[in-house]
Order: sequence, then structure tokens, then C-alpha cells
Amino acid sequence: MERRLLLDAGSGGRASQRLISSLMGRYFSNPILDVMDDAALLPAIDGPLAMSTDSYTVTPLFFPGGSIGSLAIHGTVNDVSMLGAEPLYLTCAMVLEEGLELDTLEKVVADMALAAEHCQVRIVTGDTKVVPKGCCDKLFINTTGVGRLRRQPAPSGHAAKPGDVVLVSGAVGDHGLTIMAARESLSLDGQIRSDSAPMNGLVAKVMEACPDVHVLRDPTRGGVATTLNEIAQQSGVAIVLDDASVPVHPEVAGGCSFLGLDPLYLANEGKCLVIVPEDQAEAALKAMRSDPYGQEAAIIGRVQEEKAGRVTLKTRIGGERILGMLEGALLPRIC
Amino acid sequence: MERRLLLDAGSGGRASQRLISSLMGRYFSNPILDVMDDAALLPAIDGPLAMSTDSYTVTPLFFPGGSIGSLAIHGTVNDVSMLGAEPLYLTCAMVLEEGLELDTLEKVVADMALAAEHCQVRIVTGDTKVVPKGCCDKLFINTTGVGRLRRQPAPSGHAAKPGDVVLVSGAVGDHGLTIMAARESLSLDGQIRSDSAPMNGLVAKVMEACPDVHVLRDPTRGGVATTLNEIAQQSGVAIVLDDASVPVHPEVAGGCSFLGLDPLYLANEGKCLVIVPEDQAEAALKAMRSDPYGQEAAIIGRVQEEKAGRVTLKTRIGGERILGMLEGALLPRIC
Repeated sequence: MERRLLLDAGSGGRASQRLISSLMGRYFSNPILDVMDDAALLPAIDGPLAMSTDSYTVTPLFFPGGSIGSLAIHGTVNDVSMLGAEPLYLTCAMVLEEGLELDTLEKVVADMALAAEHCQVRIVTGDTKVVPKGCCDKLFINTTGVGRLRRQPAPSGHAAKPGDVVLVSGAVGDHGLTIMAARESLSLDGQIRSDSAPMNGLVAKVMEACPDVHVLRDPTRGGVATTLNEIAQQSGVAIVLDDASVPVHPEVAGGCSFLGLDPLYLANEGKCLVIVPEDQAEAALKAMRSDPYGQEAAIIGRVQEEKAGRVTLKTRIGGERILGMLEGALLPRIC
Repeated sequence: MERRLLLDAGSGGRASQRLISSLMGRYFSNPILDVMDDAALLPAIDGPLAMSTDSYTVTPLFFPGGSIGSLAIHGTVNDVSMLGAEPLYLTCAMVLEEGLELDTLEKVVADMALAAEHCQVRIVTGDTKVVPKGCCDKLFINTTGVGRLRRQPAPSGHAAKPGDVVLVSGAVGDHGLTIMAARESLSLDGQIRSDSAPMNGLVAKVMEACPDVHVLRDPTRGGVATTLNEIAQQSGVAIVLDDASVPVHPEVAGGCSFLGLDPLYLANEGKCLVIVPEDQAEAALKAMRSDPYGQEAAIIGRVQEEKAGRVTLKTRIGGERILGMLEGALLPRIC
């Protein structure tokens, strides 16, 4: 018999207390969370802070390579990391649909706990709402993270400079294509898995190896193409991307070709774009490759002065074309 | 013709950029938010931090005395304040339903901006997801706040001591009854309005007036009765509440009597429970009453040693009864 979530678990009364203590309180337990006051009391953090928030609505809840639970940890850890910061504390707020299988919820919570431990971040406070059946689709998670800035100026989308080199930490498009295939029950050739992974370790290594990290960005929704367009606009520079240098797993390239998709527009959840001065590019590449999540890191492009605001793709056959931002909705609920 | 939200506004591409820059970016604009990197860069905060998160799913979106927008600011400002802290920065993550009227969204965003300005907090970063029609009910908001701790030990639900005095900052039950009446289109006597309001100013005054503030808690879901039960359990003390001293607006008392409800279990969104040593109770009361949101503050109970973990109600006719936590679901989506 499946146990299912009842509406009273969101009442704020005894049923809420029971759910939280038996599930979130148990899996996420740590000295800060366990106090269970209205707010978490965090030890002082030296210097400026990085703070980021994301809501996760991905469907299906479980997919090859991860789940909404692991994604909710990795995604926010990665966003905080993109200021070159060390993520320390996360909050977890869930909106749950009445009737949700409690086993499903427990699996998600367990995935979050495991991912948080792996990233060495603590979940310090939370919130649980239960909405009547039909008012949300199974469950949504918000995580918000704070971290310690390593140094200033922090890397920023505004800081790319002509002459800089663009690197990516590994093959692109895995997450987007995995979700699409899982959603549509497509059977594509080979094993496609989400790349959902934490970037905080890789970022720490890059920050240590390179004195001037101009930009760090994780190319999630909209993919590498859209993220590079944002950077080009923010920094007022042009970026030239070398298509042949962008790592793409053969099964993703195959799936994309079959479906008429471009991996440069597919979401990634365990990748990092790094932009550094040319003389630090090799050091950045080496640092990235020394991390378990950066083995396939590559130099993929250059920052230029001319045609500011634009991203150009040098194609494999030697041509050039403008690579715009994602137009339209490629796939809703990708993360 | 009503303009409605399209799914591509959640794609992470150009349509997302357009929505965010025309709405959230415009209303929430401040130097930290405007940078628009993956994470916000916050100035250093001296000493320990308070951090809290809440998701808001209230329906209807607009109700007498407030909206999901103002509530999303007040609720999190209040939770951060309950450590005696000064709330400084908030994040805002929205899950929006495809087809949502853009005018509705703009009203909510405008309410958030106004409330944030009133509370003197900044919205520093955000996230916007759009889910297909039917996957959520109009819109959900998550706000997560950080603030500066004023002193240690911070007030805590674990710190109530026998002999302490319990105060409330004003009349109870307004928010819960307002939502119920709005939802069910009940016409109750008189003007019932949500009490949605920020408690940060009032808390600052209490912290300044009283050297030993043992407990601060905002009695939201589950009401004063459930919150006091949590405190009694956490602190291992008994609390005796004097029913006749608890301020209740006559129209709320009337509505509750008509509907068979107890105002002590109804949600509040602009109230604060304060527990201080007996010799600081008058100072706390005076400080609370000096705040615009504490005019009806009152001493409502005592902390005792015997019967630890229990809340007892001294009734108006001189009897005593146990006041338990809220059982069952009084009303979903109250906040």
C-alpha cells in the first residue's frame, strides 16, 4: 500500500511537525538546522557574500544521472560558485502536491541530503507547503545558497575582455537531451545521462590556479550559446566560438542530429564556462582537468573587440555564422 | 485584450530576458540586483547571520490587507527578524503558470517592490520559472532572506524560562479569517483585513528596550496556540495563556464564533510573540506599543516549570484547559 501525502502535512500543526521531523529533519540533520527556529543562525562569514536562488520544477522527477533532489543542490551550489565563491549554506523550501507518494518524497529528500554532503554544504533551514491535488505537479523545490567570496573583484559576466580565452569544463548538452529523451520516452542510441554535478571543487581549483578569472558562468537553460550571448552583452565584447573545439558526447551529437537540435542550446547542469586572460588559459585548463568533473575541459573560443555584443560560431567547414540567444521555448521544466 | 504569460518566458532565452528586464528588473532595481550575474555579491555582514526561507502559495492572490506579493516580503522579513536580527537582503524566485495574466504578475511584483522598500530590504537576486498550464495554480513565490544578528545569544524557541512573561504584538487571527472569508466568499460582519505587516521595526525596538529577549516567534500557520506549543516543547517549559488578555478584533471574534473557529489557531502574518523575563515585560510592552504595528500589544501569559511541554488556557470563566497544537488541516494555502 502506497503511503501518500495528506493536505494536513502543510497545516503548520502537528502533521507538519511529524512530516518534517521524520523526513527533512532526519535526512538533513546538522547542528544549525536542528535548532528549528524561524530562521537559521549562521556563524560569521568573513568578507563579502555570494547569494543565489533557484526553483526546480524539472519533470520527470528522476532521470538518468540525477533527480530533482540532486539537481536542486547542484544548481544552487553552482550558481553561488560562479562568483568564485565557496558555497556554504543552503535553504530548502518545498511545495508539495497533496497525494504525492511519500516514498517519492523520501527518495528526493535522500538525494538532496547525499548531494549536499558530497558538495560539503549544509541545509540550514527550510519550509514545506502542501497544496491541494491539481494545484502543482508533484513537487517543486527552491534552494537558496550563500557562500564566502574568495577574492575581489569577483568573476562577473561584465568582466570579459578582448583577447581573453573561453573554456568549457566538459561536453555540452547532456542534461537537456536526457530530460527530453526521458520526457518523450525516446530511445536514443547509447547511454545518455544528465551531467548534473557540483562545480564548487572545480571553481576552487581554477581560482587558485589563475590570478585573474574574468568570468565564470554555468550554461543552464538556454545552453552555452545563450550564456555566451549574455556575457557578450554584459561585457560589451564579441565572442568567437570554435564549433569543432566544443566537446559533445557522440550519443548527444547523434540524438541532436536525429531530433534537429543544436547541443549549444541545450541545458547543462554540471558545466562551467571560464573566461581568463590568454596567458592563464593553459593553467585554467589544467586546473579544470584535474577535477573529477572537468576531465573533458577544452578551450572553445576567444573574446574579441569588434562586433561587440555578438557571438559568432566558426563552423567545422570554415564558415562563420551568428549564434543568437535561444528564441522560443525549447523545453519547459528542464530544471 | 489581456496579455498573458507564454511558456517561452521560462526558457532561459530571449523571452526570459525580456520578461525579467521589463518586470522584475525594473521594479526591484538596485545596484546589487542590476549586475545580473548568476549570484548576487553582497557586502560583508559583520558577525553571525540569520537566514530564513518561505514559499508562498496563498490563494486568492489578492485579499483585503495585502497580496501574495506583500506577504512574500513580510513573511520572510519576519522570520529573519525572529532571531532578533536585522533583515537586509532577500531573494525572489517565482514559479509562474503559462497563461497567467501579465497584469496580475505586474501587480504582484509591484506589491513586492513596495513592501521591500517599506521594510528597507533589497531584493538582490531572483529566478523565474514558467510551467505549462495546469502544472501550478497561477503563481508561487519563494523569498529567502539574510540579516545581521544584533547580539548573542539570539532569541530562540529553546530559551523560554520559568517566570518569563509572554506578550503578543496585537490582535490575533486576522489573516487566517480574512483568507477564509475571501476564499469562501463569506460576508462576515465588519471589515476584516489581513494583518500582513513587517515586524522588523518592532523587533528592533524590543531588542533595544530589553537586554534579555528570550523568545521571538511569529505565529503564522497553526496560530498562537501551535507556536506556543512549539516553544513549550523546545524550551521544556509550560506556558499558561490567559484567554481574556489575548487581543482579538470584535469582527474576528464574531466571525470565529459564527464559523466555529478558535482565533488562537488562525494564522497571523504581522504579529510577534515575545517572551522576556518578568522584570523586562513592561519595557517590552512599551517598546511594542511604540511601533505602528504594535499598538494593540498585550501581556497574554506566563512561563511555568510544572507540566513542561504543555500549553494551558485559563478560560474567561475561570477554568483551565489544555491548548494543543493544531490537528488536521484548518485551511490549505493560507500563506
